[in-house]
Amino acid sequence: MPHIALNSEEPGIRGLLRFRPETGRPISELAEVLLRGPSTLTRGERELIAAYVSALNGCRYCSASHAASAAAQLPDGMVLVEQVCAGAGAAQVPAKLKALLAIAAAVQNSGLSVTAEQVAAARAAGATDLEIHDTVLISAAFCMMNRYVDGLATIAPEDPAVYAAGAQRLISQGYLPPSAEPSGQA
Amino acid sequence: MPHIALNSEEPGIRGLLRFRPETGRPISELAEVLLRGPSTLTRGERELIAAYVSALNGCRYCSASHAASAAAQLPDGMVLVEQVCAGAGAAQVPAKLKALLAIAAAVQNSGLSVTAEQVAAARAAGATDLEIHDTVLISAAFCMMNRYVDGLATIAPEDPAVYAAGAQRLISQGYLPPSAEPSGQA
Repeated sequence: MPHIALNSEEPGIRGLLRFRPETGRPISELAEVLLRGPSTLTRGERELIAAYVSALNGCRYCSASHAASAAAQLPDGMVLVEQVCAGAGAAQVPAKLKALLAIAAAVQNSGLSVTAEQVAAARAAGATDLEIHDTVLISAAFCMMNRYVDGLATIAPEDPAVYAAGAQRLISQGYLPPSAEPSGQA
Repeated sequence: MPHIALNSEEPGIRGLLRFRPETGRPISELAEVLLRGPSTLTRGERELIAAYVSALNGCRYCSASHAASAAAQLPDGMVLVEQVCAGAGAAQVPAKLKALLAIAAAVQNSGLSVTAEQVAAARAAGATDLEIHDTVLISAAFCMMNRYVDGLATIAPEDPAVYAAGAQRLISQGYLPPSAEPSGQA
């Protein structure tokens, strides 16, 4: 049961975004830009980083949601996602993505854990500065989302079908609530 | 030296918000709503939570920035801020604020660390559900900001006068960049 009385039955972060739309709006906009906006990282790769960090934080709702979303957008689907979440070091992913996942794991521990060597390895594997930036910020943002979702003890459904359906809705509609206009537009 | 090539000499998160305005805008908006928007928690109390969490995360730039901002907006100034950052349990703060700081510290560790007892203690001390919500989200948000700032190894000035001047600028101008309109307005 959530620690506070929410104004809907919606699970996970969805109930929180609805409870406090003033903060929900910029949080949704940040997710939309980071995970679905223009980028040289695919949407599947970015969802994979989100799922991996959420798994490291032990956040069941976020890891299941973003694992489903990553699986639906990556050629290797849930097999790869589960492999990464079980330990990115041994997963069968391209060198650049593996180096970015290592940076994401360091950020999950602490920003101070990221080493110049990890950044150099990502760059050597072809990562751009913007890709490194976005990886750090995706990991940092999910350290927020995960704490927000679990810190208020929101509900995480058990049924995997709920997350698979959520992923399809996300892929077609994005992270912005239906009523929200993109930032800066009337 | 930052891990990536930024497009300004601005320290801490300011250089990052400028480097990537697409993500900078919602991050600034979230800070503005959480730390300065309408609330039954004073701006000083909210900045104190931000400073405390940033100190727990060992983020020198954010803890110095928000300590300066809290000190400038709390009656007891930097003496109280330093007392809280050294250990909120022993600090001379009202019972409600102390209970909220305990929740913030739990969230900093992990969302899963927040207990029903901590929430009940905050409520018994007079905290509303919205105050508990905002405390969890402020702590979670600074777990993002701190990781973002340190994960990219941004510069943290040594001189306390830099942070004091930044606090005065914040108090008069807020967290939104000068060019940004509030979300949803053209």
